[in-house]
Amino acid sequence: MNSFGIKFRVSIFGESHGPSVGVVIDGCPAGIHISQEDFIEAISRRRGGTKKGTTPRVEADMPEILSGICNGVATGFPITIMTRNCNTVSSDYETFKDIPRPGHADFVALKKFSGYADMRGGGHFSGRVTYGLVVAGVVAKKIVGEGIKVSTDILSVGGRADIEKAVEEAVEAGDSLGGLVECRVTGVPVGLGEPFFYSVESAISQIVFSVPATKGIEFGSGFAAAGMRGSGHNDPIVDGSGTTLTNNAGGINGGITNGNEIIFRVAIKPASSISMAQKSFNMATQKVESFKVEGRHDACIALRIPVVLESATYIALADLMLLDS
Amino acid sequence: MNSFGIKFRVSIFGESHGPSVGVVIDGCPAGIHISQEDFIEAISRRRGGTKKGTTPRVEADMPEILSGICNGVATGFPITIMTRNCNTVSSDYETFKDIPRPGHADFVALKKFSGYADMRGGGHFSGRVTYGLVVAGVVAKKIVGEGIKVSTDILSVGGRADIEKAVEEAVEAGDSLGGLVECRVTGVPVGLGEPFFYSVESAISQIVFSVPATKGIEFGSGFAAAGMRGSGHNDPIVDGSGTTLTNNAGGINGGITNGNEIIFRVAIKPASSISMAQKSFNMATQKVESFKVEGRHDACIALRIPVVLESATYIALADLMLLDS
Amino acid sequence: MNSFGIKFRVSIFGESHGPSVGVVIDGCPAGIHISQEDFIEAISRRRGGTKKGTTPRVEADMPEILSGICNGVATGFPITIMTRNCNTVSSDYETFKDIPRPGHADFVALKKFSGYADMRGGGHFSGRVTYGLVVAGVVAKKIVGEGIKVSTDILSVGGRADIEKAVEEAVEAGDSLGGLVECRVTGVPVGLGEPFFYSVESAISQIVFSVPATKGIEFGSGFAAAGMRGSGHNDPIVDGSGTTLTNNAGGINGGITNGNEIIFRVAIKPASSISMAQKSFNMATQKVESFKVEGRHDACIALRIPVVLESATYIALADLMLLDS
Amino acid sequence: MNSFGIKFRVSIFGESHGPSVGVVIDGCPAGIHISQEDFIEAISRRRGGTKKGTTPRVEADMPEILSGICNGVATGFPITIMTRNCNTVSSDYETFKDIPRPGHADFVALKKFSGYADMRGGGHFSGRVTYGLVVAGVVAKKIVGEGIKVSTDILSVGGRADIEKAVEEAVEAGDSLGGLVECRVTGVPVGLGEPFFYSVESAISQIVFSVPATKGIEFGSGFAAAGMRGSGHNDPIVDGSGTTLTNNAGGINGGITNGNEIIFRVAIKPASSISMAQKSFNMATQKVESFKVEGRHDACIALRIPVVLESATYIALADLMLLDS
Repeated sequence: MNSFGIKFRVSIFGESHGPSVGVVIDGCPAGIHISQEDFIEAISRRRGGTKKGTTPRVEADMPEILSGICNGVATGFPITIMTRNCNTVSSDYETFKDIPRPGHADFVALKKFSGYADMRGGGHFSGRVTYGLVVAGVVAKKIVGEGIKVSTDILSVGGRADIEKAVEEAVEAGDSLGGLVECRVTGVPVGLGEPFFYSVESAISQIVFSVPATKGIEFGSGFAAAGMRGSGHNDPIVDGSGTTLTNNAGGINGGITNGNEIIFRVAIKPASSISMAQKSFNMATQKVESFKVEGRHDACIALRIPVVLESATYIALADLMLLDS
Repeated sequence: MNSFGIKFRVSIFGESHGPSVGVVIDGCPAGIHISQEDFIEAISRRRGGTKKGTTPRVEADMPEILSGICNGVATGFPITIMTRNCNTVSSDYETFKDIPRPGHADFVALKKFSGYADMRGGGHFSGRVTYGLVVAGVVAKKIVGEGIKVSTDILSVGGRADIEKAVEEAVEAGDSLGGLVECRVTGVPVGLGEPFFYSVESAISQIVFSVPATKGIEFGSGFAAAGMRGSGHNDPIVDGSGTTLTNNAGGINGGITNGNEIIFRVAIKPASSISMAQKSFNMATQKVESFKVEGRHDACIALRIPVVLESATYIALADLMLLDS
Repeated sequence: MNSFGIKFRVSIFGESHGPSVGVVIDGCPAGIHISQEDFIEAISRRRGGTKKGTTPRVEADMPEILSGICNGVATGFPITIMTRNCNTVSSDYETFKDIPRPGHADFVALKKFSGYADMRGGGHFSGRVTYGLVVAGVVAKKIVGEGIKVSTDILSVGGRADIEKAVEEAVEAGDSLGGLVECRVTGVPVGLGEPFFYSVESAISQIVFSVPATKGIEFGSGFAAAGMRGSGHNDPIVDGSGTTLTNNAGGINGGITNGNEIIFRVAIKPASSISMAQKSFNMATQKVESFKVEGRHDACIALRIPVVLESATYIALADLMLLDS
Repeated sequence: MNSFGIKFRVSIFGESHGPSVGVVIDGCPAGIHISQEDFIEAISRRRGGTKKGTTPRVEADMPEILSGICNGVATGFPITIMTRNCNTVSSDYETFKDIPRPGHADFVALKKFSGYADMRGGGHFSGRVTYGLVVAGVVAKKIVGEGIKVSTDILSVGGRADIEKAVEEAVEAGDSLGGLVECRVTGVPVGLGEPFFYSVESAISQIVFSVPATKGIEFGSGFAAAGMRGSGHNDPIVDGSGTTLTNNAGGINGGITNGNEIIFRVAIKPASSISMAQKSFNMATQKVESFKVEGRHDACIALRIPVVLESATYIALADLMLLDS
């Protein structure tokens, strides 16, 4: 299913090595100012390529507006934005048609789509497709307004806080690293979230788990809550606006925002593409074989993913806000 | 939003102290055998009351079939099942109208529903509402068939593996405990899950976070993946049916089942209702005040939640299976 | 699919001879006053039984509130309302298991639901199921507010304007009659309707064609427009609030309300149940056979359907209004 | 709302004078052969321009595939197809910013989108946007398979059967004409359609009323049914496969296909754009004024709409078929 949202609906499309990646956004209120420049920073953050551990592949990724924006203003009609794929070297991947790469969607795509899926570069499962999410996130950010701010921190990569050094070592080893990212949302009004199945956590987790490489999500105290007692976990309310002394709730009670900061953490797995030799089952020879994936890889997806998680969060918040209005 | 699912749609209703709790199930294929007895075990597990740490409140909870089942067989029409609420002592709760209880949805409900929400016993935010989920889970289990089996383990409560003892101590202290629950699904076919926004993780996490008290979810290696390297995380495929040597993926690649066991863990917070004295802001006096919640409480929701998580998982799987057919 | 609506979601359930018929309503704003008495008039109009040509079957049909309303006020939680079926004489219908009745859903239900559908009295296809629609319509009417008023007129039955006489003759002949009903909505604000697929006409026609026996719908000039010229069809705008001199548009331009009266007409077929002898194919004997349907029948559904159409219209309007807010 | 469908989801985008029009199609099964040539015939029929009474504007309208198709085969991923708008002379329309044209969406768009809607050429309300529908219809036709065939007949224009002559006269008068179009679907399997709100009639009418200029729809006997008796309306079943002697049902009972031909008729209003002088309210001068719309217009939309109605029908059928599988 390529669509997310009830009132602010985002429909992504594209494959890694197909003609384009992009998004159709339905439900953006008319009158919001959106220009091509608004997208540059987020797209540039998603692209990475300047930090160690992100792929050095240069992607222009300039957004092309196909509908819904006129003279820099949202018209109220569906907004379509895409970018052309280029600089893709497909021969890198074609040798591995018979050997489904471990950790990748090669095997499941082969089975689910009867071999018809265009899996060059990961196809529609590629992180490349998050381009549409990031673009939609820019629009969503405009909708939620300046008072609400989503920010992210990379807490660790490969379990280490000396992040640059950890990445350097992984790159040298031809290996990759997982990472832990924290998201915080400030300025949240009380009352966002729809009980039962569209709680704030339900909405955010649904969209966050759409982001390739996500392995876990926890809100507020998260997994630590499993080891706590209620007397320590309950957040005492200290004023009439609902401010709490502690924030184990992560800003959410009963699936509804309580006005305190929303906090959640996301576990990102190490990129499945590594330069080291690996083993997998060769469907042609029917044997387990050793193989290597040539080409340039992200050593650490977690470095590029913060803007994607921020975008996903803005999208979920925009939908929840429009639903609550 | 009270509905979950695309082809197998579950719409829950009810409040803790209202007339009833229940569910409408749309999209159940005709011909599936369902009798009142099929529900007894799951309802009884949800009810708890026999183990230490679960509420001693006796609830008959017998399911009443209002539509969609005739002579023990699903007709193809919407199935409605409910049970009457009884044995509710509302006076327990009425004294706290002015003092929103920490950890509960009292404050957010007050704001979101302008004071009109019937919050006796937690209202629609109560764990009581999971009755509908559990009932729908029984139907979903029939749809997914006997080959697929969802099971759960309580890994720890309050951070301890000596679970009974931990609960005993908490009960004595008038306190509550969080818990960690693991879900495993065996017999899963390859190919369930719809990219992008209805990945297996997106679907399961959406419904699991609807369950009150859930604070986190992780699939396969989960948060540990953040500290791993790709060479160690990638699961080598060892045969043509996609069996992997390790299962860091938790049975899911690219959001699609790969035929190996689905594994995920859920963090459950300690129940917000405790017998100990707590502090909160009194909206009437405009002061922080100390108060105690009388009545019977679950010391450890995690003890009763496994059947709810299993039900939620069956529901998500039933929808994904029907979508994939 | 038993659900209609995006923000105001109505999920109906029940069968003619099952335990109950009813509805779950999600998305009703908290604070709206709704008491059991509010439903009486609409339910009584739906029931009919006092006019010639409607079934004399006495149905109490008192609404039972199962959730979502507390002390006569909507709580913001899902509202569930049902009524028990009673006074059903199933033996009337059981003799026709092998002979699918012409005009009824017997044959298609047999095929689609592999014979498991409970088709006594028409099952889920019965007009009985419109009970849920009518109940939801009462809630929807409260949401749209007193300024907006939906009314209906039976323009003709059996092609005649002397309606009572036409019905009398049909009853005597053991036959049934179709009818033409006009709906008008006054007090409509400008701007309801979502382009493209949730235009006012799309929303209204989707729900109206759910009503059993509907054969056609036309807005404003309707089918007459096919024979008109643009110079005669275009409605000149005569003031700044959009008032038009004529109303060929039926109050809708581009799928959006223009502030003028919404007008549409609905064609209702003659009831398929008649007392006269009919022919159909006997699945058991594999021959075309003559048969008669005993029991009491509506001679003219069109007499009872106005309140159903009004309810359907209120539901569509409530959803469109909440979406536009 | 720019999306239609549950399992086969079509999301249209674009405006008349914006950069492009197009569609994203989600849920197309992998392996279906689709090449650029497959679209030519339908696009060419939609474009018209060769018959009298259709706009002489030349539009290349060649489809550009942006995603989801690789080497002429559907990959299972979202399919995006668009075409650039060109040859648009916006100055034709800019003079009428203050005067909402009768019959057009100018006034409602002004109000609903606070003046931000790009209404040049009708914007997103333009028939131009049906390009996406027609393209999606080609894909849908492949899904439903060769056994099912949708065809259309223009029964009359301006109320006359001598269609060419009627159009000629209207063109000379600078006026436009409505028309009546009949759709027939042969080869339909028994059992398509989901009770209650996604009956065949509900699904088809929802999408057909999305098509600009549609004023009415009737199935089988349609509005004539209002004047009939049950004894004449009921279609006797004459064999075990459900063949009926007559087809007043239009191939649908209880909202479900019965295996006979689906028949429905659609009323198309005369184009709102005419060359004759008209009157409307000038928002700037606050007076009713006379004005003329320069530019080239369709004298009779009904001539170009058959392929759009066929496409809409194929889309609805594809979704119903995939849901029923």
